[in-house]
Amino acid sequence: MRKEYDELLSLFKEASIVEEIDMLLYWDRDVTMPKKGWKQRAEQVAFISQLAHEKKINPKIKELLVSIVEHPDYEKLSEQEKRNVYLIKRKYEKMVKVPPDFVGEFSKQGVIANKAWEEAREKSDFSIFQPELEKMVEFNKKFAHYLNPEIDPYDVLIDYSEPSMTQEKFEKLVNPLKEAVVTLIKECLASATQPDMSILKRKVPIDIQKKLNLDLLKVLDYDLERSRLDETVHPFTTGSYDDVRITTRYYKENFLSAFMSTMHEAGHGDYELHVGKLGSYQPVGQWCSDGVHEACSRFYENILGRSEAFWKYYFFKFKELTGEIFADVSLEDLILAVNKVEPSAIRTEADELTYDLHIIMRFEFERDLLNEKIKVKDLPELWNKKMKELLGYEVKNDAEGVLQDVHWSEGLMGYFPTYTLGNIFGAQILMQLQKEIPNWESEIEHGNLKKILDWFRENVHEKGNMKDSFELVQDITGKEVTSDYLIEYLKVKYSKLYNLS
Amino acid sequence: MRKEYDELLSLFKEASIVEEIDMLLYWDRDVTMPKKGWKQRAEQVAFISQLAHEKKINPKIKELLVSIVEHPDYEKLSEQEKRNVYLIKRKYEKMVKVPPDFVGEFSKQGVIANKAWEEAREKSDFSIFQPELEKMVEFNKKFAHYLNPEIDPYDVLIDYSEPSMTQEKFEKLVNPLKEAVVTLIKECLASATQPDMSILKRKVPIDIQKKLNLDLLKVLDYDLERSRLDETVHPFTTGSYDDVRITTRYYKENFLSAFMSTMHEAGHGDYELHVGKLGSYQPVGQWCSDGVHEACSRFYENILGRSEAFWKYYFFKFKELTGEIFADVSLEDLILAVNKVEPSAIRTEADELTYDLHIIMRFEFERDLLNEKIKVKDLPELWNKKMKELLGYEVKNDAEGVLQDVHWSEGLMGYFPTYTLGNIFGAQILMQLQKEIPNWESEIEHGNLKKILDWFRENVHEKGNMKDSFELVQDITGKEVTSDYLIEYLKVKYSKLYNLS
Repeated sequence: MRKEYDELLSLFKEASIVEEIDMLLYWDRDVTMPKKGWKQRAEQVAFISQLAHEKKINPKIKELLVSIVEHPDYEKLSEQEKRNVYLIKRKYEKMVKVPPDFVGEFSKQGVIANKAWEEAREKSDFSIFQPELEKMVEFNKKFAHYLNPEIDPYDVLIDYSEPSMTQEKFEKLVNPLKEAVVTLIKECLASATQPDMSILKRKVPIDIQKKLNLDLLKVLDYDLERSRLDETVHPFTTGSYDDVRITTRYYKENFLSAFMSTMHEAGHGDYELHVGKLGSYQPVGQWCSDGVHEACSRFYENILGRSEAFWKYYFFKFKELTGEIFADVSLEDLILAVNKVEPSAIRTEADELTYDLHIIMRFEFERDLLNEKIKVKDLPELWNKKMKELLGYEVKNDAEGVLQDVHWSEGLMGYFPTYTLGNIFGAQILMQLQKEIPNWESEIEHGNLKKILDWFRENVHEKGNMKDSFELVQDITGKEVTSDYLIEYLKVKYSKLYNLS
Repeated sequence: MRKEYDELLSLFKEASIVEEIDMLLYWDRDVTMPKKGWKQRAEQVAFISQLAHEKKINPKIKELLVSIVEHPDYEKLSEQEKRNVYLIKRKYEKMVKVPPDFVGEFSKQGVIANKAWEEAREKSDFSIFQPELEKMVEFNKKFAHYLNPEIDPYDVLIDYSEPSMTQEKFEKLVNPLKEAVVTLIKECLASATQPDMSILKRKVPIDIQKKLNLDLLKVLDYDLERSRLDETVHPFTTGSYDDVRITTRYYKENFLSAFMSTMHEAGHGDYELHVGKLGSYQPVGQWCSDGVHEACSRFYENILGRSEAFWKYYFFKFKELTGEIFADVSLEDLILAVNKVEPSAIRTEADELTYDLHIIMRFEFERDLLNEKIKVKDLPELWNKKMKELLGYEVKNDAEGVLQDVHWSEGLMGYFPTYTLGNIFGAQILMQLQKEIPNWESEIEHGNLKKILDWFRENVHEKGNMKDSFELVQDITGKEVTSDYLIEYLKVKYSKLYNLS
């Protein structure tokens, strides 16, 4: 049976290699590809994604799985090996239902829709994107139908990003969070303590920002011999193991945007750089779920990056690198500005409190699109209405409204909930970190960030995919997953910052 | 039969797409890949090159070929269609003899050997590269043996780069050239007229050089919406159609190096940008041979780029972009410096006269390695001896000796002769250009470079692969291929520049 197991793993490795190539094609498209190369790229992506799919549903995999699972020696496999077998089986059984040419077409349409989205966003004109988005919704419906025609299509897509998640489960976690957050936002906005937002609008030349962001990666002990930082319209992370790539975007009059995006993506990147601890090219040596990925990125970005402790430590370096620009700014004012509470248009720029409301509305739109309760063509109007309702924000145009996110253009639906799930996981993991390293904040203040990062790497990253996400978080923290910790974390943090009673 | 033909072409397209992906993997390795990503890249390259090979020898191709060629309607195919069928058949019959796993292993070893070469070159220590090069020679021998075990293995490799070329044919072209060039070099070196070489050693900051090289591409009417210019250790061109990428390398105290490399690679790049005129993803819409590719690059670099006419036109812009650096330099002195004759170490930096001697020695080494007349371990010594003998140059270390070129590390043997072949083709094509546009030099002087480039594109690039290289050049020029035109061109040019009697 050893032979069959090894053969199964080598088939898995081959599929992973094809996926790595696929990731490079996407990275290159967004970072380095000549402008007019996109039609050729669409063909390449269609080919390679279809191939990746074929590798995953290779009939040989089924044969091997049967002969392994039914073998009398099966029980002699280690826990890790059994998990590998289980994960390959789960993926196989899911993906075998999806025809390869459908996967190729879906990917190709993704490149075309992404191109249209870029143009639409630039011109702030949803009508350019609308027909392509309509196709992408149809592709998603079809995809969900292939995977499981018997349940709510949106549940199928959520489960694809986050194994065993459902709308119901998500709503149960998110409803109390929504309520708490809405109240907290009101209190913060009503407080006499308010950040000096003009700090964030000071001009910081791009070359200084680039130095700042590279320095940040060093501070985060982020391995630049196995990674790189580039610039894209929409920040993202891709790659695995020894070749992981992150991107950010720079605005002259909003330095915090690049800084926080870099920290967010470095969280994703660091996960990929360490997730292979149990063995690269094995299912257990890959990311657990999109929710856990977002737990890593949101933990780096918010729990570390927006903490008092981090800025107490980094303040001096920050001032050194930015020269005269913030010479008159006090540490307290900077911390409050970094933690501004402000209903605003753009999700990726949103503060920790309003952020989850951006997710909740996307969750609702996706759910309703998939279930044909709303139409693509009505999205801009619905979007603006919902922004007003939930956040009290008046959307000025499509670019800062319905066109802001890249995800739908690439066919990604059911992913958005994982951001909030990541916040929930992260806060619960913080609770455990606080137990094990009670002086964690003072460690950071004194520059021992690596101690905290190493704890996180050991307890989260390096666990790979030995458990499903909810079980993983329960294992780390000894508690069932709940949004209570996130609510508590936000209450304590913002009450202190805004002097709430 | 139309159905079979279309299916054949669609299989060809698929293979071409896989090759495009392969090219991106190499480009990324040299330009953007994180330092430690190379092991993963070796796996990816092994996989994709093996796949590309499998696509080329798909048994379905043979079936289709048979049913097309034997079909009563075969004669109704257009010339272009027949040529497509012929080229697919020729490639298939060649490649079907090579086992796919051999191709994968060969490519993988190429990435490993390239890594060793980089390190060896950096440390100027051949011993680091030696064991890997030994493997690469063995791979080449095996490759030649698979293709045709019955003839001289080096002839097999030459034919792979340049269909229907042989050592004998090459020697016949090259012997009179060698003789003429050796005499000319002596005469130039003995002349009272000598360039002021210090001009070329003036410091030009890299950022100014970058602007200069981008400007050069504009002057060359080079389409940067379908291409890009990057920086690598060894300049190269890759890609096709709407995504073609060229690289150069900058030295602070040798601006001419980057400038001429950019022009050389732009010649390659421009060929790829226009070669698809007859139809992309068809054999006839791809490069004809490596020799024709080098004819394009060497034509742009030398015949245009080192011409009096070009510098008469570009002198003003050049001075404008470089500011004070060359303020005191006259046009005549610059032209003479650009056309310096100087036996020197590095092939890619060599002048037009000494260049072919660098090629001839590589040709002889490859021939003798493949035929086991010399050993890899003796190469450094043999190299230095030959450099002394042929060029009178004393090699200082391995980095500027046997380690200078990237080709062998990537498994490319039999390619070098195509550079000189390119020079021969280029000079012969110039003869025709002079006939058709007698005032070509004055056109360039007056800034109508595009007129000359368009002639070249129409007569060379856009002909694609309708004919084999020797026939193509004969068609363009009405004469059999000979090195007489190159000899004449060099004699006229250098006699004038160096006031030879």
